[in-house]
Amino acid sequence: MAYPGYGGYGGPMPGMPMAGAPMGGPPMGGYPPQFGAFPGSTFAAPAQDPMWGYFTAIAGQDGEVDAEELQRCLTQTGISGSYMPFSLETCRIMIAMLDRDYSGKMGFNEFKELFAALNGWKQNFAMVDRDNSGTVEPHELSQAISNLGYRLSPQALGCIIKRFSRGGKIYFDDYVACCVKLRALTENFRRRDAMQQGAVSFQYDDFITCTMSI
Amino acid sequence: MAYPGYGGYGGPMPGMPMAGAPMGGPPMGGYPPQFGAFPGSTFAAPAQDPMWGYFTAIAGQDGEVDAEELQRCLTQTGISGSYMPFSLETCRIMIAMLDRDYSGKMGFNEFKELFAALNGWKQNFAMVDRDNSGTVEPHELSQAISNLGYRLSPQALGCIIKRFSRGGKIYFDDYVACCVKLRALTENFRRRDAMQQGAVSFQYDDFITCTMSI
Repeated sequence: MAYPGYGGYGGPMPGMPMAGAPMGGPPMGGYPPQFGAFPGSTFAAPAQDPMWGYFTAIAGQDGEVDAEELQRCLTQTGISGSYMPFSLETCRIMIAMLDRDYSGKMGFNEFKELFAALNGWKQNFAMVDRDNSGTVEPHELSQAISNLGYRLSPQALGCIIKRFSRGGKIYFDDYVACCVKLRALTENFRRRDAMQQGAVSFQYDDFITCTMSI
Repeated sequence: MAYPGYGGYGGPMPGMPMAGAPMGGPPMGGYPPQFGAFPGSTFAAPAQDPMWGYFTAIAGQDGEVDAEELQRCLTQTGISGSYMPFSLETCRIMIAMLDRDYSGKMGFNEFKELFAALNGWKQNFAMVDRDNSGTVEPHELSQAISNLGYRLSPQALGCIIKRFSRGGKIYFDDYVACCVKLRALTENFRRRDAMQQGAVSFQYDDFITCTMSI
């Protein structure tokens, strides 16, 4: 880590670009609010909520969507805009990110939380994809990750770029998969970092649980 | 972890099923040999090696394959047998697993190492997929993971099952993706667990590097 004493966790709001994140300073000041700051109670009642229509039409009886249903749901909302619709794989990790009860499915409140995050990520992608080509260059992905408030070493960024690029470019779907994983892994890490020191001791089984589920 | 003092790392050989792995005992005795026990020098010279033909026809000038080339390569070898060919996503994590120089590509020695692991995993899958349907049930995935020498808690297994199943079943491609990730994450953990205690302290940046790259 380039910034000792500062955890470097990103994401002031789910997916919202954050300009000029603090580069140092005391741990408490340097940490943006946690993810998941959308308690269910602050949402509009479902009946008045335009998202409810998209969701309930697909969720059916159990009131939850699995990855294939989520894919259809997101396609219908038009969130991908001019980009390709989300792949099933990306939808699966979207569910894993918010699947706090490990049901493998997503309820309406989680869907809303995801949707808010996606809007932030999409806006951030559009900022670096200036020609609206649907892909960004490796250095632009680094910029996008930095915009989200993450402070990562060049080595970490290099690994991420290699993992999520195809033919030297990063497509919107892969960028979102990257954002989802980065947020979920950071949240898993943060939950275990009670003192916000930027270091966590993992038992093997716990390490596997919180990394294999994403 | 159900077995304190025992790391529970799996994989006696890359992907080889291991019957009756030790359930406890001293750490040193309980640890099977590390993965990656296929040094290049033990391979047949490429010209005499039947795999060389598959590989070189696709690798071309640079002598390495990217994920799309690997997908074609593996399809041509017939390794998937009666199962569906590997998805591009699974091929990407196969490359990530062995990509020690972070090039995003795979050379011939890594290809051979992967192929050996795949044969072991396939044999293990066939043992639990008794009706040769190409899918296994959740409890059979647990069995398969146990056969590979991993000793994981029910919670860890539950997370893995949720993540890799579709419609309550686990397909061969997803099973292999699971094996690849489990091996790569375990190897990353093990490398940092110098005393083989089953516990590692991660800095945030290092945690992200070794989990986002898989």
